[in-house]
Amino acid sequence: MSDLDNFFNPKSIAVVGVSSKGVGLQFGGANFVNALQSCGFKGNIYPVNPKGGEVLGLHVYPSLMDIPGSVDYVICCISISQVPQLINECVAKGVKAVHLYTGGFSESGSEEGKRIEQEIASFATQSGIHIIGPNCMGIYCPKTGLSFASDFSSEPGSVAVICQSGGHSFHIIREGAERGVKFSKLISYGNACDVNESDLIEFLAADEDTRVIAAYIEGVKDGKRFARVLAKAAKVKPVIILKGGITESGSRAAASHTGSMAGSEMVWDGLLHQANAIRVHNLEELVDMALTFSYLPIISGRKVGILGGGGGATVLAADDCIDAGLTVPRFSKALQDTLRNYLKKGNTGVGLSNPVDLSDQGWDIFYDCIKTMLDYNGIDLLIFHMAFGIMPTMAQLDGFSSVILNDIAKAHNESDKPMVAATYSIINDECWQAFTECRQKCREIGVPCYYSLINAARAISRFCDYHEHRNKIQEQGAGTQVGRSNKKPG
Amino acid sequence: MSDLDNFFNPKSIAVVGVSSKGVGLQFGGANFVNALQSCGFKGNIYPVNPKGGEVLGLHVYPSLMDIPGSVDYVICCISISQVPQLINECVAKGVKAVHLYTGGFSESGSEEGKRIEQEIASFATQSGIHIIGPNCMGIYCPKTGLSFASDFSSEPGSVAVICQSGGHSFHIIREGAERGVKFSKLISYGNACDVNESDLIEFLAADEDTRVIAAYIEGVKDGKRFARVLAKAAKVKPVIILKGGITESGSRAAASHTGSMAGSEMVWDGLLHQANAIRVHNLEELVDMALTFSYLPIISGRKVGILGGGGGATVLAADDCIDAGLTVPRFSKALQDTLRNYLKKGNTGVGLSNPVDLSDQGWDIFYDCIKTMLDYNGIDLLIFHMAFGIMPTMAQLDGFSSVILNDIAKAHNESDKPMVAATYSIINDECWQAFTECRQKCREIGVPCYYSLINAARAISRFCDYHEHRNKIQEQGAGTQVGRSNKKPG
Repeated sequence: MSDLDNFFNPKSIAVVGVSSKGVGLQFGGANFVNALQSCGFKGNIYPVNPKGGEVLGLHVYPSLMDIPGSVDYVICCISISQVPQLINECVAKGVKAVHLYTGGFSESGSEEGKRIEQEIASFATQSGIHIIGPNCMGIYCPKTGLSFASDFSSEPGSVAVICQSGGHSFHIIREGAERGVKFSKLISYGNACDVNESDLIEFLAADEDTRVIAAYIEGVKDGKRFARVLAKAAKVKPVIILKGGITESGSRAAASHTGSMAGSEMVWDGLLHQANAIRVHNLEELVDMALTFSYLPIISGRKVGILGGGGGATVLAADDCIDAGLTVPRFSKALQDTLRNYLKKGNTGVGLSNPVDLSDQGWDIFYDCIKTMLDYNGIDLLIFHMAFGIMPTMAQLDGFSSVILNDIAKAHNESDKPMVAATYSIINDECWQAFTECRQKCREIGVPCYYSLINAARAISRFCDYHEHRNKIQEQGAGTQVGRSNKKPG
Repeated sequence: MSDLDNFFNPKSIAVVGVSSKGVGLQFGGANFVNALQSCGFKGNIYPVNPKGGEVLGLHVYPSLMDIPGSVDYVICCISISQVPQLINECVAKGVKAVHLYTGGFSESGSEEGKRIEQEIASFATQSGIHIIGPNCMGIYCPKTGLSFASDFSSEPGSVAVICQSGGHSFHIIREGAERGVKFSKLISYGNACDVNESDLIEFLAADEDTRVIAAYIEGVKDGKRFARVLAKAAKVKPVIILKGGITESGSRAAASHTGSMAGSEMVWDGLLHQANAIRVHNLEELVDMALTFSYLPIISGRKVGILGGGGGATVLAADDCIDAGLTVPRFSKALQDTLRNYLKKGNTGVGLSNPVDLSDQGWDIFYDCIKTMLDYNGIDLLIFHMAFGIMPTMAQLDGFSSVILNDIAKAHNESDKPMVAATYSIINDECWQAFTECRQKCREIGVPCYYSLINAARAISRFCDYHEHRNKIQEQGAGTQVGRSNKKPG
């Protein structure tokens, strides 16, 4: 189904249904035009409105047929009753790819909405046109400048997302950008009347720009095909799945949202496990896993070293790692002695056996301690954690951002041992400020930054699960051989 | 053990070990003086340092014995080697209550530290003096102006906390203040060489200023007594417990932190369940439960209405409520019709059967919808949720704070039906700003505000669990009868 390429590489786009008022609080066609302009789309953008005029510096055409050149891709923002006519025009105009932002179809529960959706889908199949949607935000593809919000990053990456919710799409793209997740493409695909979750996963499994696939799915059109496609995709790249509407009440909401049908917890759990897909339970975990697969090299074990400040925080950090399925090995006496030499105040209230607690020791010993722990061959990975709200005085956070962040970066650059950060206890403006500086620094140096210790630990554990399960499948000779690398993928 | 009163109602406090440099980045005695001054302690504060001089406008006495008046309470910030001599002086001076901030005792692992700790504890028992600590932050009691940080709220409330970690204590007090949790007292009690967790819970169970007890505990000195005290306390008020060091690695960390001994997961689970204590698994949940018990009236069932914006967010909200053990009843046709009448744009992409999704409808219909749902007798509680990062444009958040927060407050004030808020997807500065405004408004109007839907749902479910279990115990005639009220405790 490589005709999906038309969605990601259009030379020209018509945005049909652009208000003459331009971009306002009310989202509409002009927002798509604005987003394409802001994110650097290089081709022609043709706004369409029967009234004509000008929008965002562009000439507005009265209809699709009035556009002088060819149109590869149409974003449809007109009301449902006008959509069938537009699809006819698309065929006449030689358009191959249509995104229906328009809502009011099967998700509305109305018979009329369902009927029009079915008609459009049948017509698309007959005429060789492809439709994303209806009732969705469409395509984000930074490589070719496609976007649906003007604030989205234009830096391309290797994570692809298919997302049945527009709101979740906004969250994933923005949150990903703050944390260093870069996208090959994101498809907000709504009701999936034509192009569906199986088409998209199959396409992304073969997409050379995509190394990791993540999906938020409310319903599946064809269960058997989905199971087949998913298993095949998960053999060649990690596939992260968040299933929405897994409960009866959630499923009722999903029916109103995207007209999706229910799927039981048990069926999904079995399906995902068998395919070696990575199941997550909320959006934060979805972004966590995309981040983890983007930055962590394959690690050979689950032995983590933990370093941070705060006695209680350190105790709970160890509990969280164990709960998540990691191991926290006791450090050798030699390593503990080395660490002890860096301390300025004796080892009062400080544990050095792993986890390591550097409470009240000043920020300037963190470099030596992190460096020493990264060099220790008894661990596979280092978790640095920082609870911002536990400082005796908030003024201490100044030292954190000015001293420690550069030292962490230095130690990380000097080592091949992977490292992650967990930053939490964000209570007030001062903490938020320190947190955002930390998140930015982590993004710059390629250290995955999580928002709680348990989230960090779960992400690492799921990352290990995935590779262990894949190895097992490969040993059984059932899977394609996939090369392993110990390099940081960066 | 009502002599613990001496810790909370001192007329005069000596802070022994105050650097002449005053308050600096390095935490020490001067910070305690500063905290007492800032939080409105009305009695005499006597800083002590052999060098004399002046600190924060107060005369510094060379020794405890040089202080002219009587001293009720001593905060000890000198090094461990000097502590035995100070305790002797305390007895001579008639001091009844000592807080040992000093560390380096049993938690250091050194034989010398353990020996001194035991000596001091024995001496305290013999001489009728009581000690909090060592290795802890001591007492926060806003009613009498006791505090260990200058930024702590001076507004008293009815939640008491005992906390074996100083860092966690900072987090709980600050985070509580942001969310509307007000404290009767918090005791950071460290190694518990004399006053221990059982003494404190017993004291707080009888404390008239305390309606809810929360505890972070790493180790227990006397398991049988603890079980007895806990069961008795939990019969008269809710007791929330976070056990740190529940895993082997966490326990190793706890030994380094407060010299605590391990306790297995199974033992703790059984113990807490039997006592009808509320078990939580992290600090956020601990504050969640303190907040929930502070503001929610007893509710008669688990039927929740869910209202928010965002299709995907709404789907996951329903899933989270069901997962947590709540029910999300389908609304009557009449109620759905009423809600539909408020919609401005038809019911495109909007579910009204519960959960209710008001995506893309503008902020100004929220008041009517919330009011209508609060009036509906098919639900016991309303959950309002808001995902900040999913807005098509961040500018939409302006409308949120200026319009919707006042409307929520109005609807809440006009109803007796309890309501909570879940605010999440805090991605960037704009979201943080909207979030803090929302949190502040919720605090002002007495609506518990949680940081995720699942946390809100779990808190409500645990709140229901507690009352259901307590009713069962009372029906069996085993417990003291405790009056029920349907008033909002405010």
